[in-house]
Amino acid sequence: MTTLSDVAKEANVSKMTVSRVINHPEQVTPELRVIVEKAMEDLNYHPNSIAQALVNNRTNVVKFVTLEDIDTTEPYYMNLLFGFARGLNTKQYAMQLVTDPTQIEKGYADGYLITGARNKDYDMFDKLDKPFVLFGENHRGYDFVDTDNQTAEKIATQYALDRLYKRIIFIGIDIKEPFEYSREAGYINTLQQHQLIPQIYRVPNHSHKAQEIIHEHFKEFKKDTCFICASDRIAVGVVRQLQDEGARIPEDFGVIGFDGVFLDQVSNPKLTTIKQPIFKMGEMLASMLLQKIAQSGSPQGEIMLKPELIRRETTR
Amino acid sequence: MTTLSDVAKEANVSKMTVSRVINHPEQVTPELRVIVEKAMEDLNYHPNSIAQALVNNRTNVVKFVTLEDIDTTEPYYMNLLFGFARGLNTKQYAMQLVTDPTQIEKGYADGYLITGARNKDYDMFDKLDKPFVLFGENHRGYDFVDTDNQTAEKIATQYALDRLYKRIIFIGIDIKEPFEYSREAGYINTLQQHQLIPQIYRVPNHSHKAQEIIHEHFKEFKKDTCFICASDRIAVGVVRQLQDEGARIPEDFGVIGFDGVFLDQVSNPKLTTIKQPIFKMGEMLASMLLQKIAQSGSPQGEIMLKPELIRRETTR
Repeated sequence: MTTLSDVAKEANVSKMTVSRVINHPEQVTPELRVIVEKAMEDLNYHPNSIAQALVNNRTNVVKFVTLEDIDTTEPYYMNLLFGFARGLNTKQYAMQLVTDPTQIEKGYADGYLITGARNKDYDMFDKLDKPFVLFGENHRGYDFVDTDNQTAEKIATQYALDRLYKRIIFIGIDIKEPFEYSREAGYINTLQQHQLIPQIYRVPNHSHKAQEIIHEHFKEFKKDTCFICASDRIAVGVVRQLQDEGARIPEDFGVIGFDGVFLDQVSNPKLTTIKQPIFKMGEMLASMLLQKIAQSGSPQGEIMLKPELIRRETTR
Repeated sequence: MTTLSDVAKEANVSKMTVSRVINHPEQVTPELRVIVEKAMEDLNYHPNSIAQALVNNRTNVVKFVTLEDIDTTEPYYMNLLFGFARGLNTKQYAMQLVTDPTQIEKGYADGYLITGARNKDYDMFDKLDKPFVLFGENHRGYDFVDTDNQTAEKIATQYALDRLYKRIIFIGIDIKEPFEYSREAGYINTLQQHQLIPQIYRVPNHSHKAQEIIHEHFKEFKKDTCFICASDRIAVGVVRQLQDEGARIPEDFGVIGFDGVFLDQVSNPKLTTIKQPIFKMGEMLASMLLQKIAQSGSPQGEIMLKPELIRRETTR
């Protein structure tokens, strides 16, 4: 059985330093932390997390809170969750999943990751007595990690123009939330740079709602049009209805989705889309939250990750 | 602040009984447990899980272990996970997600849920020093929860016959595992009851592999054939290739999938499929595992849940 002394000897530091790395990592320099953590790993030393948690008045548990309806949960939550779990595992943290907002504070936890938050939820957050971070941009000053939504749609719109589509139409999600405004802004700004007039439709985030809007307006759409969609669900509906109307994809009509998890690959034809780095965002949310807990709740700021355009079969 | 005494008074039992329900539920009759737990809930009383865990030498953490490659993770794992989480939450348990088998015993946990186990993994299980349960049937005597795979394909095959398809072909997963054998057995037995000869193809669980096999043999397939597929992924590939060959679905060819999570609904046409009760299985796995932990690892047996046939657009 490896002891704390063994770790101290291996890392060539005092036992006090090892103890500090375990219990108060924020009081130790990053270099020292790396050395000690490596020694702990090499010797397969795991401090008793329970005893350690008691010392720190911690539970070593955080909650993963999903405020969106679980029935409509996109598969990308799976990636977020596994990324988050990977981040937690590095510090031997465990999680509870909570889908009922009234249960957030039930039981014990050291902090919360909150996903799917909408404007109406913010009042509740101010009452939470534990540190939390959000998945998704917000303008209330809450710490968050998100994709850079505005840059994402700039990239998508510019790509459609580069592929010589003459008209670019945005099919957004019918929701008054910062991520949607940012996506629309990326589209609008890029069009304006090219002296083109934005044209935006907004629908609920379901493929059949996207089908309806395409069906309704199909006669108005001319050839050489590309649809920039705020989600892959919407893109799938747009593609399906264009096919049903007999339109040729990608020759006459282009479609670009958003998310890049699963749906883009199982659709036929496969979607050109903006791929969010979801697993990575999950990992970063975990490290942001654990850092915030270690620092007694001090602000961690915003992290916006750069997305990637994946070229597939729905654009020229 | 609610105390243990308040709970005892509310439930009309001694404080010792309340303490026993919290720390040694296996020593209390189910009736008494229900009464005390209801009182705890009514009074919003949450025993300090950390102190409680120390008393019991427990961590109040279990691990959700996924042995399948995370890249190929089907969306249904999300439902399993949330079901499992719901089950854990009732006892204020948290989880760690583990995708690297070498990390299973790293750190601390009271037990493990193991998913995606294959024959090659079983040797490892015998070395685990904590209670575990499996998601997925096995013939090694390990406790598990699964769908009743054999009954499922009996239902699917019988339904295809009832819809007057004359030839029923099984497209299985190319894997030597109990769940696949059970699915094939359900198909074979039903055909034999009707004096029909089974015809089975097996492919890796990818839609394009299913497309290849349909393309290769399409000329041999006569009208009035229904394909019973061992997964929705395979069914999606079968449908796609049949469409590419110009075949009419469901008039001339029927397709029935398996899983009933997400993929069946986003495909076009929507799949007739066998829907597994995944969320429910997750919940049952949690309660089986927590029960096993409370009973110091004693066997819990097998639970096979009945699946449901969902009739949609790929059968007459």
